[in-house]
Amino acid sequence: MSEKIAILGSGAMGTACATVLADNQHNLKVYGIDLIELSDLEQGKNVKYFSEELIIPKLKTTTDLDEAIDDVKYILFAIPTKFIPSVFELVTSKVKNKVIIINVSKGFWPDSNLSVHEKMEELTKLNKNIEGIVSIIGPSFAIDMVKRNITLVDAVSNNIELAKKVQYLFSNEYFRVYTQNDVKGAEAGSIFKNMIAIASGMLEGLGYSSNTQAALLTKAMNEIKQYTEYIGGNKETIYGLTGLGDLILTALSDKSRNYTFGKNYFNKDFDSERMTIEGLKSIDIIYNLYIKDQILELPIIESLYKIIYLKNDAKQVINNLMARPLKSE
Amino acid sequence: MSEKIAILGSGAMGTACATVLADNQHNLKVYGIDLIELSDLEQGKNVKYFSEELIIPKLKTTTDLDEAIDDVKYILFAIPTKFIPSVFELVTSKVKNKVIIINVSKGFWPDSNLSVHEKMEELTKLNKNIEGIVSIIGPSFAIDMVKRNITLVDAVSNNIELAKKVQYLFSNEYFRVYTQNDVKGAEAGSIFKNMIAIASGMLEGLGYSSNTQAALLTKAMNEIKQYTEYIGGNKETIYGLTGLGDLILTALSDKSRNYTFGKNYFNKDFDSERMTIEGLKSIDIIYNLYIKDQILELPIIESLYKIIYLKNDAKQVINNLMARPLKSE
Repeated sequence: MSEKIAILGSGAMGTACATVLADNQHNLKVYGIDLIELSDLEQGKNVKYFSEELIIPKLKTTTDLDEAIDDVKYILFAIPTKFIPSVFELVTSKVKNKVIIINVSKGFWPDSNLSVHEKMEELTKLNKNIEGIVSIIGPSFAIDMVKRNITLVDAVSNNIELAKKVQYLFSNEYFRVYTQNDVKGAEAGSIFKNMIAIASGMLEGLGYSSNTQAALLTKAMNEIKQYTEYIGGNKETIYGLTGLGDLILTALSDKSRNYTFGKNYFNKDFDSERMTIEGLKSIDIIYNLYIKDQILELPIIESLYKIIYLKNDAKQVINNLMARPLKSE
Repeated sequence: MSEKIAILGSGAMGTACATVLADNQHNLKVYGIDLIELSDLEQGKNVKYFSEELIIPKLKTTTDLDEAIDDVKYILFAIPTKFIPSVFELVTSKVKNKVIIINVSKGFWPDSNLSVHEKMEELTKLNKNIEGIVSIIGPSFAIDMVKRNITLVDAVSNNIELAKKVQYLFSNEYFRVYTQNDVKGAEAGSIFKNMIAIASGMLEGLGYSSNTQAALLTKAMNEIKQYTEYIGGNKETIYGLTGLGDLILTALSDKSRNYTFGKNYFNKDFDSERMTIEGLKSIDIIYNLYIKDQILELPIIESLYKIIYLKNDAKQVINNLMARPLKSE
């Protein structure tokens, strides 16, 4: 059944989600503020992010938020995290009919220790028009979605019926969606993958090889497990697409901004101050909430904090990790 | 304490293990049959496998098996799997004092459904001179070990005291060894990583991207878990270095022979018949033991069997996997 859907955001992930949903014959309107991107999308391209050879459906667009969300059943948020609070408040005050919010932003809500998903839930608890929040999480680079490469993700929601609706909205022969009702466990994976991607990139930047990166990812799973259990998630979730799957994708690829940040970190010409890197903020939050007072033992995240925030020597920090007492796995 | 150790095999992994052990000041002798390799090792190189810039310690070598194992405390097997049965029989009949066997070969013993480790144990059960078998398993490309890149592995043995001895033998500031007493769980990881590496290489060969490979590895963990539980291993083991760690390394890298086999499989000029690929044999064994009679549901391994042994069309097999009913993770 063709559904009416608003896509908020004309960037890489908005375009990629719109591509999947347009392939599934849904009725879409893309809201954005960048006139060049919107004009591109009307013509079936988005050259800022994707080469023109890639097939993007011609999409209806608007710069008018009211027009975008008028009479839709789903509103998909694919705007940069820092703009979410203001746009989300606007949207939730404007909707006049029942809608389901689809979120593709991972990590923490700006200036908050809650994830974007959890904060959205909190803000809409009393809003009768918002049926609920469903996040799309899993190993899914936007470019590979636009290439119609096989991609598997989870539709994550506390309300499994809503997750099922989103599952059927997106699923097709190249995009396969599972449902997942462990929001905390899924968000734990999303938060850790960016921090570990920084660490993995740093290893490459320091000249270490794939032996070292494979060991890092394996040991990182222990830290994700500890964190997930502490915040009340299900530890099984971390071995699925939202945890392990997204970690493998993000922490081993130059296509990840967090990875390239880590890789270039020790390069003298690299200006790390200017960049918005999700993992960076997470390291600070996790350190201060859980590590500083020894609530959790997370040696990899602690090492990242020492290197980035305390400016300790990276090789020395790594040597200290290697010098920990030998034990059984 | 410097220990007397025989290294059997002058190939890439024999040289890499000898490098770590020589860095730890042990007293080594390398046994081999290739005079060029042995002569190289005497001069501190092994040009067949490693560029001459890499620092390899000058090693004592011999073509005389008796001389190699005379009065040693450890015998490390690093010879091709197909030669292990004959050399192993010779060695175990010759040892005159207590020794610990160290094994670095993974997968099945030739013409057997037992792993190399398990078969070695079975064959030496009544031999008073063999204290036990310890396998070194984990994400460890030989070249990266010789480069002294940080590498983490498990010393795996049913006898944890022997595993600890091997742990201390190998451990240093770049090579970190954990102990592991779940032999079945560790071997399950070793057997599956090569099969999944073939599948992952095939995905690259067919033009799929990292989204697809990350999803493959994540879903593969479910199959490794099922198999491990069925054969009596501990499912926690598969998330450690011998399982997940080695899978990440092997199934995402051109340095893995199984991966490049899969990648080139659909290339018309590629002669797949000539090659010795561990994963190929494992697919046949696992299919016939567990899948054919529906003892286990292992859709990825079944798909590999259909493509390789039943010559089904790969794209069609993948489409069938994608068309399975949608469910929760």
